[in-house]
Parts: sequence; C-alpha cells; structure tokens
Amino acid sequence: MTNHNSASDISPEPLLDVAALRADTPGAGDVVHFNNAGCGLPATPVLTAMVDHLRLEAAIGGYEAAAARAGHVRAFYAETAALINCAPGNIAFAGSATHAFSTALSAIPFAAGDVILTTRNDFISNQIAFLSLGKRFGVRVVHAPDLPEGGVDVAAMAELMRRHRPRLVAATHIPTNSGLVQPVAEIGRHCRELDLLYLVDACQSLGQYPIDVTEIGCDMLTATCRKFLRGPRGSGFLYVSDRVLDAGYEPLFIDMYGARWVAPDRYQPVETAARFEDWEFPYATVLGCAAAARYALEVGMDAIARRTPALAAGLRDRLAELPGVRVLDHGRELGALVTFAVEGWQAEPYKAAVDARRINSALSFRHFAQFDFGDKDVDWCLRLSPHYYNTEQEVEQVVAAIAELGTAGR
Amino acid sequence: MTNHNSASDISPEPLLDVAALRADTPGAGDVVHFNNAGCGLPATPVLTAMVDHLRLEAAIGGYEAAAARAGHVRAFYAETAALINCAPGNIAFAGSATHAFSTALSAIPFAAGDVILTTRNDFISNQIAFLSLGKRFGVRVVHAPDLPEGGVDVAAMAELMRRHRPRLVAATHIPTNSGLVQPVAEIGRHCRELDLLYLVDACQSLGQYPIDVTEIGCDMLTATCRKFLRGPRGSGFLYVSDRVLDAGYEPLFIDMYGARWVAPDRYQPVETAARFEDWEFPYATVLGCAAAARYALEVGMDAIARRTPALAAGLRDRLAELPGVRVLDHGRELGALVTFAVEGWQAEPYKAAVDARRINSALSFRHFAQFDFGDKDVDWCLRLSPHYYNTEQEVEQVVAAIAELGTAGR
Repeated sequence: MTNHNSASDISPEPLLDVAALRADTPGAGDVVHFNNAGCGLPATPVLTAMVDHLRLEAAIGGYEAAAARAGHVRAFYAETAALINCAPGNIAFAGSATHAFSTALSAIPFAAGDVILTTRNDFISNQIAFLSLGKRFGVRVVHAPDLPEGGVDVAAMAELMRRHRPRLVAATHIPTNSGLVQPVAEIGRHCRELDLLYLVDACQSLGQYPIDVTEIGCDMLTATCRKFLRGPRGSGFLYVSDRVLDAGYEPLFIDMYGARWVAPDRYQPVETAARFEDWEFPYATVLGCAAAARYALEVGMDAIARRTPALAAGLRDRLAELPGVRVLDHGRELGALVTFAVEGWQAEPYKAAVDARRINSALSFRHFAQFDFGDKDVDWCLRLSPHYYNTEQEVEQVVAAIAELGTAGR
Repeated sequence: MTNHNSASDISPEPLLDVAALRADTPGAGDVVHFNNAGCGLPATPVLTAMVDHLRLEAAIGGYEAAAARAGHVRAFYAETAALINCAPGNIAFAGSATHAFSTALSAIPFAAGDVILTTRNDFISNQIAFLSLGKRFGVRVVHAPDLPEGGVDVAAMAELMRRHRPRLVAATHIPTNSGLVQPVAEIGRHCRELDLLYLVDACQSLGQYPIDVTEIGCDMLTATCRKFLRGPRGSGFLYVSDRVLDAGYEPLFIDMYGARWVAPDRYQPVETAARFEDWEFPYATVLGCAAAARYALEVGMDAIARRTPALAAGLRDRLAELPGVRVLDHGRELGALVTFAVEGWQAEPYKAAVDARRINSALSFRHFAQFDFGDKDVDWCLRLSPHYYNTEQEVEQVVAAIAELGTAGR
C-alpha cells in the first residue's frame, strides 16, 4: 500500500557523531523526541544564545542590547542565506512561517478572477488563506491532481499553468501531515518557463534537506526555524528573490522598517527583503535562529539529509509490519515524517498512551488535511518525526511501544 | 512655548516603594534607563518566566512545554484583559503592536473612495500602512487638524466624521515622538454616537496609564508589551470588541488557529479574538508578557500613572530651563515622553555623548513624524522616557549631563 524508501537500502550513516550531537542537546535522553516536525529539540548553543541575550536586555536595555549585538543579528541573515543559497539581502525575518507566507501573499495585488494554482497537499493555513483571498477578492483556487502513487502530478500541474496562467503558483515542499516530499524544483522549471510567480512553503524541509532557491526556481519561499532547524519557537523567514524585489512588489502592510516616510503623502520601500520585515524584532529569537542555522551548517546539511530520512524509513518499515497499523505515507520520495492510522483506538487516548511511554509525537486530524485525509479515508493519524540526533535504539523503543499498544485501545 | 504639567503641582509619589521595585529590576543601577518608550527594563519575574520556559522547551520539547504550561498561557489573556478592562476572549496575542495593527486593518474590506480619518500625530508605521491602503485600494486618508496648543482638535475631528462617514477612525493614544497624550475617549464618544469603526494604538500608554476600552469606546486597540509594560521584545496584542467579533470581521490572512477548515472549499472562523491569532506562538515571550502584566497590576496602574508622568514633568521642567534646549512637547495632557531639540549638535554625536554618560535615550527624526516635526520645524530630537522605577536622583543626573553637554557639540 505504501510506496516508500526501504531502510535496508541505506547503510547506517557514519558521517555524524551522534553521541556528541546528543551531548549537545539538553533534552536528548530525557525523552524520545519524535516530534521534530512539530518543534525540534534545540542544541545548547541555541538555548545559550537566547538566554544570554535576554539577560543582556535586562541588564542594559532592549534597544541597547540589540545595538550591542548588531553583528550577531546580521549573522542571522548570512547563516540562513547560506542554508538556502541566496544573498543575506534576500531574507526577511518573520515571527512564523505563516506570517512570512501571509506577508508574501499580501504583496500580490489580487483581482477578481485571478487564479491561485496549488496542490492537494498544501499546508492547511495556506489553503485557508487562499480561500480567504477567494472570499475577499474573488480569487479562484485550483488544485493540481495527485499521481496514483502519491504526490502532485507535475505534468498535469504544468498543463493547468498553461490553461489558467495563474497569478500565483504555490506548493508546500513537505506537507505537515505525511511523509511526502513534493517535486518543487520540477514545478519550478515550469514556472520559470512560463514566467509565473512561484511561492514555496519549506517549513518541514528547512533543516531536513539542503534547499537551493536557485535550483527550485521559486520567487519567494517561506520557512520556520523551530522544526528541523532546531531553532526557537516564534521564528521563521521569507526569502524574496531579486526578481520580485526589482519588480517592486511590497507587502500590503509595509511599516517604518520596510519603507521610509519621505513626505506626508508618500513612502519609499527599502531595496532589500527588509521591505517585508517589521520594525520590532524578538532579538533573542533572531539570535537563536542564527545559532540554529550555524549549527546545522556545521553538522552539515548533506549528512543530515542522508541520516534523517533513513532513520524515518527504518521506523516506517518496522511500523508497517505491525498488525492493525496502516502507514499512510506515499509518494515517489519520502522524508522524516512518518504517519500511520491504528485500528481500535481514539486519537487522544492513543497519543496519551504514547506520551506515557515518554515518546513525543503529534496527532493530525482530517480537518488539517481535507484533501489528503479524504483521499486516504482517515479521520486522524499519529505522526512520528525523528531527526539526525535520534538513534536507531530509539526507533526500536518506539516500534516496541507501538507494538505493545496494539489495537486494544479505547 | 511648551504647555506642560508642572512638576511642582505634583507631590512626590509615596505609594510606591521604589527601592524595592529597583531591587526587582536587574538593570536598575547599572545604567540610567530613560528609554522606556523604546523598551522598558524587565522586572526579575519577567526574565525568569522566559528563561525557565526556554529551558523547559529544551528539556522536554517545544510543543510539550506549551502543553505543560497551558495554564500560564491562559493567564496571559486574563492578565492583559484585566489591564484594559475586557474579557480574556477579546485579546489576541501578536508579535508586535504593528503586526496587531496590520491584522486589524486587514479585517476591513476597504474599497475605493473609503476614508480613513486619523490625526497628525499617529504613529509612522500606521501612517505608512494607510498610504499603502490608499495605493492598493484607493482609500483616502484624512488628517484631523491640531489645536493651537497641541493635540487633535476633537470638535474638528467630529465634524470630519460627519462629513466623510469614514470607514475607519484611527488614533494613537500617545505618539512616539512627543509627550502628547491624545483625548482618545473624547474621540471615541463621537465614534460611538455615529457608529464608526474606531481603532486605537495604545503602544505608549499600556503600562503607563490605566486603559479602559469601554471608556475609550474603541472597537479595536493595539498595544506592545515591551515598552511601559516592561515585557519582552517581540510581543503585543490586539483587543477586539464583541461588536467587531459578532459582526463577523476576520483577518484577511486567517490561519488554522483562527479558523477551522471544515470542507475543502470552506473554513469557519473561531468565535473569540483567537480569530486574529496565528497557530505559532513564541511561548516564552507569551509567558513573559503574562508576568509583565501581572507585575504591573500588582504594582498598581493608578500608582504608576501618578508617578511616571510626574517624574517626566519634573525632567521636562528642568530641561526647559537649560540654555539652547527647546522642549518640544505640547498639548493639554503630557505623559512620560520628554522630547527636546538642542542647538549646535548633530543627532548621532549627541546621542553618543549621552550614551557615554550611561544614560539610555532615543533619537527621533523628521521622517518618523512628518506632520509633527514639520509643524515644530525640527529635523531631530532626543527622547527621554523615565518610568516609575526611575528615581528623582536619576532625573537630576540626566539634567546635569544635558547641561554639561550644552550647545558645544559637533
């Protein structure tokens, strides 16, 4: 039923010193953290960067601390730009990926009849935002069909691009409710060919895979830092291409940081992606993000991208063998998110039983993924998402727990 | 030239144990912090709440820590609601007051020809947002005139309300670039009489004065927690009245937290002000805000509102006596922001000279306040903003420093 990578194809990853990485992770050992798709456990340098800055703010003042650490703030742009292969001036900090996504959408002057072309696996908040644009401005939302084996049918999507000439093409790189990895670079090639505005949500891929905005061919890309990048809660960023900046796109609610008030009736947007930022920053969070990005670059994104999905594939294979467990991930490429339905249990008691075994997981519900869960005919699933600092032993421990819980729930 | 409260009218405030409050403030003593209008120094409980939560997140996971501290998160709504006299369900957390303001504006389906009526002293980012709405949707921005003695002419503003029937009336309670306190409740009485949508920016008043949204008569109100409330950077909130919620207003970029995705082509907004929130929260920051709100309530907003403006009035009076110093604050009521121009200095060297005396201050420039600084014919000013935990001795110290700097700058 599922079509996923087999763990046996992939030899154990020798490139990473997992014991050392765990020693650098305050939460490793206390709990089996398989909820990295929710929020990763931060490494010590991330926690230290944040706590130190909060203490500095309390000691000398919030504005004064920001000025004293201006170099560290600039490092946020340099480090995140290095993660996605762009220039620092193409990055705008945001308080969440959703805020980044909204700000990106707000820059597009939608008119009645405009089409947004997206997939059946785009993130719920993006889908709701598209519907809201439909309600407010008469925008029409078109969903490209999936392949029988899962994942978007790129050829069909390209055909829809040619037919509708959409005002925006939007795709989520890795949906939040399944292991699917969407072919965002293939979609991007068609967008570039047809010169269509292309927005990618990389929330679940940042920190899990190397991301190259040039290879993807996107105009804008949004990400959060709290998930696989192991950064702080309440953080994300928006990548804005030079093409979009040069074309004069600006967010609808541009502020005194994004623009200069040059005359009573006129403002002038700044040249960089700072145009998409607000004046007020949570500086401790920004420095935590910089530390998380630096840490990921030091560990090595290639090594991470080999180990993390392989660990998940091993977990997925083992779970698929258990009676009453139905693994829900399908698609040509699968990543670190492992989702499954289980017979005989209700959602909350099942999660509580997993929690009680000191295993962190997450629930997804049909109303988070109307299309995908409708297609799969499930009302809920448990999501397990290991990361590179998790161990093969933890995978065994989780499989044993799920086996033990069986189908005998309430 | 200036028309301000006289310090001699106000006896020293005996209600507060300033020494105890300073002992509770890690930064007090290290520096003379007269930049509370930028960012207040946090009290120890605020810093502790944040650091403890960051450590908990690192130990057990970010989602798991939020679940474990759900009661503390709920307290944020209860405490901030108590500060402005509304119900917890009328509060939406935001990453900044500007974000709260943008979200509020986004809920209004502006059409060409709609009028936004505001004042000449509204915050720069609000003014830029109004201009952006003008550019995108053809909204017209009308500014009510000021009284000769400073502050908006409410009678003239009411006349403009009747003439234009504005889609929105917006006012900033305390502008960021002068000591002025605007009569927001007087404006509100006219808005209620004419049933006009009324949005108030209370950024500089929250934590400085008691705020009563019922007395103000506003439909929505925005605030930051980092200034006079002494909360974290990167925090604010939006008050949304029941009237606005019941009328079905919803933000343009509503997300999975603000709405439920009930069918592939339909979402259902939630009933409370959570409709205006995003799924992702910086939980440590939210808990820091709750601690800051609780602290202000415990110190007592009435006592704060007696001491803080009185301390500022004393500073303002003393500065006005210095040669070459021109105090810029005018209006019927003046608060904790003290602004002045000084002869013979450029902005940055002057601020640097003040910094070198371990006095925290802020610069404001003409492009932050096109109308107000145009009227006053100044290009820049220094802003000093003491708070209740500052001392009369610090006022003396600052006056001596400004006197010493004189007009002999570069």
